[in-house]
Amino acid sequence: MTGEDAVRELWRLFDEGRFDAVRPLLADDFEADWPQTRERIAGPDNFIALNAAYPGRWRCRLRHLHGSGDTVISEVEISDGATTVHAVSVFTMREGRLGHVREYFGDAGEPPYDRSRWAERY
Amino acid sequence: MTGEDAVRELWRLFDEGRFDAVRPLLADDFEADWPQTRERIAGPDNFIALNAAYPGRWRCRLRHLHGSGDTVISEVEISDGATTVHAVSVFTMREGRLGHVREYFGDAGEPPYDRSRWAERY
Repeated sequence: MTGEDAVRELWRLFDEGRFDAVRPLLADDFEADWPQTRERIAGPDNFIALNAAYPGRWRCRLRHLHGSGDTVISEVEISDGATTVHAVSVFTMREGRLGHVREYFGDAGEPPYDRSRWAERY
Repeated sequence: MTGEDAVRELWRLFDEGRFDAVRPLLADDFEADWPQTRERIAGPDNFIALNAAYPGRWRCRLRHLHGSGDTVISEVEISDGATTVHAVSVFTMREGRLGHVREYFGDAGEPPYDRSRWAERY
């Protein structure tokens, strides 16, 4: 399984709410960094438990996937039907499994001020 | 100039507040997509003007850079000293210049609820 396949599979399982099934994709010393909140999640079990316990039922749609050597980067749209979040995840592979991820989460919403002079909405 | 060099240079110039100097790095039909607000900025001049007009004086620190073929992805910490934003930018090169970028912006802050059982702060 390539790194890109592993990341595709992770998001498919998260989308289906099958968090425990992600475990074989993760290295035994898997770690996640969330720079925005300066949180580090050490170990695959903590990563799975935190995601499983996250309040709400979130669908995950993989929008773009970039692979280069041991780095795989995904752009994912996550939504519970009311709120949408855009996640960018930078995975590093280790011996055929996901060894590390650094993730960013950006809320969807309206532009914070009027910049319609330069930008059009789509 | 490689794509990675061009992206490094763009962030160096943005960091210095030298927005007009970015122009030669951008293709004549450069476009930017901001999926969170569903905004599209068409043309290099609009992209430069919007960034130049953005309220405040923001320093940009390039934290990670990933290059693969015509795709270059940067992780940048942007701060005005009080507020910090993490930007992830997915650039596509076109004929040696930056042709397209899709950008995500995630606010720094405290964890939205107590998840210290699984995550440690750093």
